[in-house]
Order: sequence, then structure tokens, then C-alpha cells
Amino acid sequence: MNVLFKGIDLLTMTSEGFLHNVNVAVADGKIAYVGKGMPTGLLTQKVVSGQDKLLMPGLVNAHTHLPMVAMRGYAGDMNLQKWLFDMIFPVEAKWDEECIEIATKLAICESLASGTTSVSDMYFFLEGMARAVSDSGIRANLSRGLSLSEGEDAEEKVADALDFIKRYDNTEDGRLKADLGVHAEYTSSPELWRAVADAYAREPHCIQIHLSETESEHEACKQKYGATPTALLDSYGLITADTLCAHGVYLEEGDMDILAARGASVAHCPMSNLKLGSGVARVPKLIGKGINLAIGTDGASSNNNTDMFAEMKIAALLQKGLCRDPEAVSAKEILSAATVGGGRAQGRDVGCIEAGRPADLVLLDTGSAEMFPALEPYSAAVYSAGPSSVIMTMVDGNVLYEKGEFKSLDREKLKAEFKTKVIPKLYL
Amino acid sequence: MNVLFKGIDLLTMTSEGFLHNVNVAVADGKIAYVGKGMPTGLLTQKVVSGQDKLLMPGLVNAHTHLPMVAMRGYAGDMNLQKWLFDMIFPVEAKWDEECIEIATKLAICESLASGTTSVSDMYFFLEGMARAVSDSGIRANLSRGLSLSEGEDAEEKVADALDFIKRYDNTEDGRLKADLGVHAEYTSSPELWRAVADAYAREPHCIQIHLSETESEHEACKQKYGATPTALLDSYGLITADTLCAHGVYLEEGDMDILAARGASVAHCPMSNLKLGSGVARVPKLIGKGINLAIGTDGASSNNNTDMFAEMKIAALLQKGLCRDPEAVSAKEILSAATVGGGRAQGRDVGCIEAGRPADLVLLDTGSAEMFPALEPYSAAVYSAGPSSVIMTMVDGNVLYEKGEFKSLDREKLKAEFKTKVIPKLYL
Repeated sequence: MNVLFKGIDLLTMTSEGFLHNVNVAVADGKIAYVGKGMPTGLLTQKVVSGQDKLLMPGLVNAHTHLPMVAMRGYAGDMNLQKWLFDMIFPVEAKWDEECIEIATKLAICESLASGTTSVSDMYFFLEGMARAVSDSGIRANLSRGLSLSEGEDAEEKVADALDFIKRYDNTEDGRLKADLGVHAEYTSSPELWRAVADAYAREPHCIQIHLSETESEHEACKQKYGATPTALLDSYGLITADTLCAHGVYLEEGDMDILAARGASVAHCPMSNLKLGSGVARVPKLIGKGINLAIGTDGASSNNNTDMFAEMKIAALLQKGLCRDPEAVSAKEILSAATVGGGRAQGRDVGCIEAGRPADLVLLDTGSAEMFPALEPYSAAVYSAGPSSVIMTMVDGNVLYEKGEFKSLDREKLKAEFKTKVIPKLYL
Repeated sequence: MNVLFKGIDLLTMTSEGFLHNVNVAVADGKIAYVGKGMPTGLLTQKVVSGQDKLLMPGLVNAHTHLPMVAMRGYAGDMNLQKWLFDMIFPVEAKWDEECIEIATKLAICESLASGTTSVSDMYFFLEGMARAVSDSGIRANLSRGLSLSEGEDAEEKVADALDFIKRYDNTEDGRLKADLGVHAEYTSSPELWRAVADAYAREPHCIQIHLSETESEHEACKQKYGATPTALLDSYGLITADTLCAHGVYLEEGDMDILAARGASVAHCPMSNLKLGSGVARVPKLIGKGINLAIGTDGASSNNNTDMFAEMKIAALLQKGLCRDPEAVSAKEILSAATVGGGRAQGRDVGCIEAGRPADLVLLDTGSAEMFPALEPYSAAVYSAGPSSVIMTMVDGNVLYEKGEFKSLDREKLKAEFKTKVIPKLYL
């Protein structure tokens, strides 16, 4: 849909910074024009007045497990081992593809309603997730997080993953990308790392990895291999400019140097790291090292939301509080991580607003109860805004959410299916 | 308005805990009935179906400065001294009563839309705030946070405060209470503490105080007086069962013992303490000592919101993350602090749902994009819910907010007045 945003305040997230009272045109899925003048020769189907609104790039949720909304609030407030092994894994063992599709679609609704236009996700039954991405119109990088247990065949596992990649990568006009994935160092082993690195060497894709999320996994790796997870995986060729490392709570100085040298990205997930008692990543240090920073909500079961506005706010506040320095990170740095940083981590040209880029946009109501008065735009987007300020979410020029309505998904039907199909399957 | 909530899930926050599928009747401003049966002889003007809904007590924002929404996002990301002295104080010096009233009403809109039914507030131009409380229908404890500079007369200042108390305390059918207030140890002196303690001894009121918010103020007090702020103020008789201490980030073991022995309350303000780089209060220790814990958002300028749902979530997650223990505090403990704890800190019988209590209620949509599925009610209320899940907010049996509409305030008019009156006054 060709849309003209007229006289609007704009967070470009390019070197242009914040622009007051400009016109932004969307045509054929792309940003066609940004400026004080009017684009010529554009047929516009919809004109949006910029009064009391703020336009910004869609948020990139750089690490999540969307289907886990099915476990929202299930088994909270308990220690990680008990939570994961006694509660989460037994439920996850019951998944099937249809349930995954329903849960993913519900999570996409929550994501769109909170301004997310693109996600990097690692889970199972990817065909079900791919259908959810296809039907919903959201942008996604999907990966199977490979693990390797005693007796399993690494080559076979990687072949399966490559089969999914072959069938789905760069489909849906590029909206859907299929990534390589290693669940984590502590759930896999050298055969797998070698096989994934070989696959990457033959044909590069993004590689999603959980990295140094908890102190115990980080220290156990050093005990077992005499190297940190980052150094170890790097020695197998898995830390690359296409690698997206989730968490990174226990990254050491040397690990950060490796990540910076390779051009890898880190998806910071502050709420999940807090909720599971893992700790807090050293964000100012990551930024200082020049590492590409992105932000993720992780799965709803360790959050309970997929709301990137709440995640950004905590990401910024947490560092200020723990560094005892209100200048430790700025709203702009965190917004940059949640947009440009996420786009780069996904190997995509999304995350900022300039002519020629995909039209992934969020329209905010600066007159909302929580945003008014929006005296400073970066602060308003990061510290004030939330789902109740989101007027419209657009991906690839398509309006997927507007004023409480989901344009591509039937959410009431999905909720009914969740009750009749997913609940009995997972919990009864 | 007499309202019947029919077949609803209920967080009572009494020893009854969570009740599934009950009926709750509101009559003449009070909870008239809670149970599986039907109340008899009640004329009901409105029936609310409980399907896909959760009813809970209204949230008590136990420490805020409502008019500061006028400074939302103004001068963020800078160090506390520069922020307070160069940015906030010069703007605050320009306030007048009309601006205060407009800003307070806008903040009340945000508060109601995010489930808050009662606030404890410390600011200036209290007559303007009192009008906002009166017109809006919210519940509030207002205090003038007294400070004392060189050459000022303590008796005169306290007399002024008592004059406000005399005219406004227990007005609006008890919705409005006027409290005593000492801004903080570091902005006042013994003459003032003696005068306030004398006033309290003559006639008890709640006493609001900022206490040990920053390390520097806490340590400076020890240097100057040889005692912590808590011990010092206690020696003047200001730490009482009616005292509500805001922040308490740097409370020592001995301070907590004093607070516990006196039955004082602490309003924990995690977002503000993070945003200003102050640090993090030791919540599990406060709870462990048996101190009455409440939660507050502080002013919007150090937050940027007055959203108690976001505040509760961070309050819980922060302790789990920093204690590296997901069991450090539970959703139920934090919800209790934000309801029952807040009510007690205000010297009121609000914060839980049982027959005879004031009908201060929040109705949540558990089918919302962010709450569904609400598998566990405490977790759903604390970790999933936000303003976009709030269907209705009721104070004293009056529906003040419902489905995006404010019943007692004309928010569009207030926004217009803010632009024409408050912005020029404070910023131009």
C-alpha cells in the first residue's frame, strides 16, 4: 500500500537523526521519500496526518522464541534448573507443528501490537513457524538451534537444518530468512560445531547461538575445554560477521575482543536475564568495544512478553542504575540497538528510515496517556512509549496492525484454536 | 454505581488468595459481596461478564510527584546534580497553581489508564493538586515536602502545612488525605524535624519522607550527624507507624531494624532509582525484616511513566537478577506490596477485595495480546499486564476509566490547556 505520512516527526535512526515536521512516502513496500518537500508522481492510497504522532523504524526483536507465548506465566519464580528440566522441557516435548503455528501467530500479534516488525527466532517445528511468518506478513530470521546428545549424528542434524534453509531461505520476497543455529556450547559438541562451520563455509548464513548466558555454563566450559565459550566456538570458525550471539551476560574482556574483531552481534535480553536470575550483561562495555548490539525479549516464558518497548526501557535503566551513572547508556544508543543494530544482526537493511529501504515502520501516538508530553523524541520512544501508544505497525509497506486490529491474522480465531488445540496438547 | 462482576477470576490479595469464577458486587462505593453465590437485594446498574477477565485491587502508587509529567522526557540521560540543579529546579521555580492542576490531571489520566486508584504524592501548590483529586475521583494522600534553608522559619513552614491539612484532610468522603511531609534529611534541619514531630505528636497524620535515596546523601548525613538518616530522624520521633519512607536504597541493617520496630513503610521506586543512577534497594531484606513494603513510580521525569504495572515487573525482575535467584521475590509478594502494602502505607483500608472495603478495582483483559494465555494469575498481573490490558478502573465504586475513555476528566481539553498554558509557562 502506498502511504504518505504528512508533516510528521521522524526518528530516522540514520545520520539524519530526528527530523521535525517532514513528509514520508511509502511506495511498493519501500521508503520512497523523506523530506520537507512532496514526492512527485506517487499514487497514494492512504494519507496519515503527522499531528501528535512520531514515526520510527520498526523494532527488531533480535532474540526470541515466539512459540513460547504458549508458556506465558507457566512455572515462574523458580530456579533455572527446576524451571527448565522439570517444567519447560516436558511441555516442549509435546509440541506439534500445528500448535507451533498457532502459538507463533499469537506471539506475532503481540509483537506487531508492540511495534516489532522483524524477529530472529530459534526453535523447533520451523515449518509451522514459517507458515506463521508467511500468513502474518512479519519479517523473520528462523533457525533450528541445533544441539547434539550422545549417539546423535552431527552431519544428519546439520543436513536437516540445511534442508529447511534450502526450502525457506529468502522466500516471501526476502521477508523470511533461514539461519544456521547452534543452541549453545553446553548442549552440543565439537562434531556439531565442525559440521555447522563447514556448512557456513560452503554458503554463509546468519548463525544464531546462545552464548555465555549463565555463569555456571560459562565456567563449566572453561573447566571442560580450557577456553571460554566464545574463544572455543571461535576456534571452530563459528564466530563470524554473520553470528548473532544471544545474551552474552558473562562475556569476558577477551571474548568481547574476539566478537569485535569478527564483527559479530550480541542480542542483549535484559528481562530474561533478570527473571531467570542469570545476571546483567555489560552493555556499556559491549558498545565501547564497538560490538554490534541488538536487543531481544527472549521467549515469553522468561519475560512474560515480547514487548520491545519495555525491553528497551529496562536495557537503558538497568545500566544507569548498576553503573550508578545516568549517562552509562543513552536512550538513543538503546533505540539504535533495537533498530539498526538488530537489522545488521539479521543481515538485513532494515532498522532505519531513508529512501530505498524496506518500509518497516511504527507510528506512535505522542498524545497518548503515557507519552504526552513527548518533549524529547528518543526519550519518548524508549522511556515513555508502550503498546498502548502504537497506532500502526507496517512491514514491507503493508499495514499489519492498526488501532487494535490485526490486518493479516484472525486473532479471535487463534485464541479459540489455542484453547481447543494447544492447551489440551501441552497441559492436559 | 452498583456493579456486578459475574463469574470472574479474582485476585483478592486477602488470605483468600485467588478465586476462580466468583461473583463480586459493588454497591454504594463498597465491595458488597464476594463469593460463589449471588448477593440478594442489590439493585445493579451494570453487569460485567467475567469471561477472559481478571479482577484485582486498584494499584497504590505509594510515591510519586504527579505534576512532574509536565517534565516527562525533559533532560534525561544526565547526571543527578546537573539534572536536578541545572534543569529540574529552574523549571519547577516557574510553576503556578493552575499549571499544577492541569499537569496533575494529565498524570491522573495516565495513572487511571494503567490501573492506579490511589497515590501518595509530595509536591507544591497542593491546592491545585487537591482540585485535580477532587475533580478526577482518584484517591490521594498529598503532602508538602517541607525543606528548610538558612534563614527560613521552621514553625512558619509547618504552620502552612498544617493549614492545608486542616482544610483538606479527610475531605472528598475520605478520598483526599493530607499528610505531613519532610522533603529529606539533606534538605532540612533539626528545627524542622522538631516542629514536624511536635505537630505529629499533637495529631497523627502520615509522614512522607525521602530517605537514603542516594549513597552520597546517606554518607554525608553520617559525616555531618554521626548517624544514618533513619537513626537521626528516628531520634527526633519522625520514624513512626505512620511514616512512609520513599526509596530507602542505602538503608543499613540497623536502619531496617528501626523501621521494622516502628512499623514504618518503605516505598520502593526501582525505575527512578535506576534512571538517576542511584542504585537498587535491597527488597528481599526489607521483606525479610517484616517492613511494610509499598511500590512507587516516583515522578515521571525520572521514570518517564506513572505505570505501576511496569514498576511491579521491574521490582520483581531486578531482585531476581541481582540476587541471581529467580526465587528472590515472587510475583505475589510484589503485587501485595503494590496493593495491600500501599494501602497500609497510606493509612487506608484499600488494597484488597473483601466485603466492606472501598471498591477500588482494576479489571484486566486476560485475552489481550500481551496477557493471553494467562496461565497463572499473579504472574499474569505482575509480568504480563500493562495499560493495554486495563479495561476498567474504579475508585470508590465509580468507574473513572473504561476502554480508553476517562469518565471524570476531559483529557483532550487538558492536553490543549497544557499546550497553551503549561508549556509557555515552564519552557518558553
